[in-house]
Amino acid sequence: MKNKILIANRGEIAVRVIRAAKELGIETVAVYSTADETSLHVKLADEAICIGGNQSKQSYLNMNSVLSAAISTGCNAIHPGYGFLSENSEFVEMVERCNIIFIGPKSKTIGLIGDKASARKIAKENGVPIVEGSDGVVEDVHEGLKIAKKIGYPVMIKASSGGGGRGISIVRSDEEFMGAFERTSMEAETSFGDKALYIEKFIESPRHIEVQIMADTKGNVVHLFERDCSMQRRNQKMIEEAPSPVLNDILRRKIGAASIKLAKAIDYVNAGTMEYIVDSKGNFYFIEMNTRIQVEHPVTEAITGIDLVKEQIKVAYGKELSFKQRDIKINGHAIECRINAENAMKGFIPTPGKINNILFPGGLGIRIDTHIYPGYEVPPFYDSMIAKLIVHAPTRREAIKKMRVALEQFVVEGIATNIEYQYLIMHNPDFIKGQYDTGFIARFNVLVEAENRE
Amino acid sequence: MKNKILIANRGEIAVRVIRAAKELGIETVAVYSTADETSLHVKLADEAICIGGNQSKQSYLNMNSVLSAAISTGCNAIHPGYGFLSENSEFVEMVERCNIIFIGPKSKTIGLIGDKASARKIAKENGVPIVEGSDGVVEDVHEGLKIAKKIGYPVMIKASSGGGGRGISIVRSDEEFMGAFERTSMEAETSFGDKALYIEKFIESPRHIEVQIMADTKGNVVHLFERDCSMQRRNQKMIEEAPSPVLNDILRRKIGAASIKLAKAIDYVNAGTMEYIVDSKGNFYFIEMNTRIQVEHPVTEAITGIDLVKEQIKVAYGKELSFKQRDIKINGHAIECRINAENAMKGFIPTPGKINNILFPGGLGIRIDTHIYPGYEVPPFYDSMIAKLIVHAPTRREAIKKMRVALEQFVVEGIATNIEYQYLIMHNPDFIKGQYDTGFIARFNVLVEAENRE
Repeated sequence: MKNKILIANRGEIAVRVIRAAKELGIETVAVYSTADETSLHVKLADEAICIGGNQSKQSYLNMNSVLSAAISTGCNAIHPGYGFLSENSEFVEMVERCNIIFIGPKSKTIGLIGDKASARKIAKENGVPIVEGSDGVVEDVHEGLKIAKKIGYPVMIKASSGGGGRGISIVRSDEEFMGAFERTSMEAETSFGDKALYIEKFIESPRHIEVQIMADTKGNVVHLFERDCSMQRRNQKMIEEAPSPVLNDILRRKIGAASIKLAKAIDYVNAGTMEYIVDSKGNFYFIEMNTRIQVEHPVTEAITGIDLVKEQIKVAYGKELSFKQRDIKINGHAIECRINAENAMKGFIPTPGKINNILFPGGLGIRIDTHIYPGYEVPPFYDSMIAKLIVHAPTRREAIKKMRVALEQFVVEGIATNIEYQYLIMHNPDFIKGQYDTGFIARFNVLVEAENRE
Repeated sequence: MKNKILIANRGEIAVRVIRAAKELGIETVAVYSTADETSLHVKLADEAICIGGNQSKQSYLNMNSVLSAAISTGCNAIHPGYGFLSENSEFVEMVERCNIIFIGPKSKTIGLIGDKASARKIAKENGVPIVEGSDGVVEDVHEGLKIAKKIGYPVMIKASSGGGGRGISIVRSDEEFMGAFERTSMEAETSFGDKALYIEKFIESPRHIEVQIMADTKGNVVHLFERDCSMQRRNQKMIEEAPSPVLNDILRRKIGAASIKLAKAIDYVNAGTMEYIVDSKGNFYFIEMNTRIQVEHPVTEAITGIDLVKEQIKVAYGKELSFKQRDIKINGHAIECRINAENAMKGFIPTPGKINNILFPGGLGIRIDTHIYPGYEVPPFYDSMIAKLIVHAPTRREAIKKMRVALEQFVVEGIATNIEYQYLIMHNPDFIKGQYDTGFIARFNVLVEAENRE
């Protein structure tokens, strides 16, 4: 039987996976919603099949549609990309039952580590530090209050099924707690259909550091060092870099070893990411695992020279990892800026619409992952990210300078984007020094907005 | 005085230099002919100045215009790119006399090594093997015939001031010699204003291998390994790769050492390239030196991680080389395809005209250097190259596969290009095995044309 992959996603990641598969000589099938008929991934795949309406739940989240598309086109594997069904253990179980290869971990693993309370338990059992908090889901507001008192304010109330920064409240006193608990519970139910909450210590000035893991079915597990994703707006990453400007080699080794230990403990297979908070003293705390490829994987590819998506596919088809831990070295510095269809100067409101013209930056050390082209219409139904701009240079300083020039030469006409905003960040003294935490963007916004009012 | 660079060129190399200068924080001035008013380098530079009419000799070859532009805009340096005035010692001398930094070697060096007869003499004196032939210019047809008899047929008759593959005849017998000598002499006079000829042994199945040199003003000279440029059509390079698939480490070291020895012998400064012929037995013969950056420099940048154009600028401003020989390592494999506005299926006739739409390939390991954009009109006055597509991957095999996918996803609408032709070469068994010489394209053409007739 010939290998053939259905890509259960859209946008730049669908394009990314198609390219990797083609380089491996594997045929691809794209799926698309009615809104995405003219999208690039549809044009680039060997086959394309419409799976439903504009809304994600009618198409990209529609498990039966996706699975039927795979079966009817004779695919023997599904690549989920990120978001949508990529971390849905029910879907993965369906895929497994149909004898189709899921390019990712087993459904059982996703069930185990995808649930945040369960993930914390596993980390604790394996000696990986976690942020103090409730052991799993909190029964009710009274139990919550007791735990909050015990670990001390500030604390975070988080939805157990949450993600992408939604379903989180920060509470600084007993007085605030009751109301915040109820609000978060309601938000969790509406957004994720699951009102379960847990509580953890809130760490001030935290860095968001994540470690890339890659594992095959033969028991080989390696890490590919860390990414610093502290540049977030409302817990949505905006800029990512590798290596992190604040990790020293000792901490780097420790956090890498902890990640491998965790991955081995759950018999993890394929690409995955351990997310940590690192405080200003160099303590690290495991927060969650993403059981899929990340948006920001290109910065890791840049500094290691390893094609993570190709490796995902090869591992899923039963191949051994093509490299050992000792082969993986950090080479230079990489930064990624997410280019979004949003008006960064006006509260980041999404700006769907027709792109009339584009000028892409290019040259040495420039990588662009995108699905847009001149004449493309950004639909209003999905994520606002329209491109990823990745630079790679020998040093962080040179990477920043390269990013500035690339952003300056990246022109998108027809819709507002955050290109200028990213350009401003690249000139911020704290960013240049590498001194920023997950609260940077919120503070930076105040400055930018003040300037805009003048 | 603030540093400011005038770029005495057009097209992708002007864009390339502007980006490098901007990353170094140096202002740039573009020059352009009336035909290039809407060209990308004009838009991207800090300033732009029109230097004359459509024909090269009215603008890009007009020394006084270029120099006046530099002076009137307060530039303290000129980057010549490749072609045009880049190897014109008279122009470089004018630049020097105006106390402007020429980003390249001294005019004296260009005069010395730019003349091919003189270059051969220098190589011979330094023990670098050359292809047997006349010691310099041949007086007349009778002396030529004597030398041809001595070194044995086949021989080449070459114009001393020639270049780009023009002014060359291959002769296989005494009978052919007389007529070929007269014809080549006439062609040399018409094309280069200099009818001087020299003669050398013609090597069958030769590989064209060149070594990248970089030298500073403090006496540091390094080589950055070789490029294989054997994929030529009428001596115009079409595909270049690094490292060469036919060089072993011993030969690689030898040819690198020879290049450094030559560069030191002439006190060479800045980027330069030693071109060699390598025969099937692994003998190498120096043929000429190019005293400027080459079109194909990105393949070297890919495998070494070194920005050659930035280094050119830094060295010209008096900085020491930022790396030593021992720092330069080969990492993976890189291939460049030159994308030309020409109808490769119809005798490679140039196809100037308006580009309506473009789809660029992208993603991991893809580099594009170009000056085209949707709506751009390719003028009929200059070189037909509209883009360089460079891929970088861990192995040659992976690089070829990446190039295939990239070419497949590179769409230029409105004019014919050689993209499909390059795609065909990427599937040729001999190319895939690395078994090709400078005659490959000529032979390949016969096949392609035969297939097109069917």
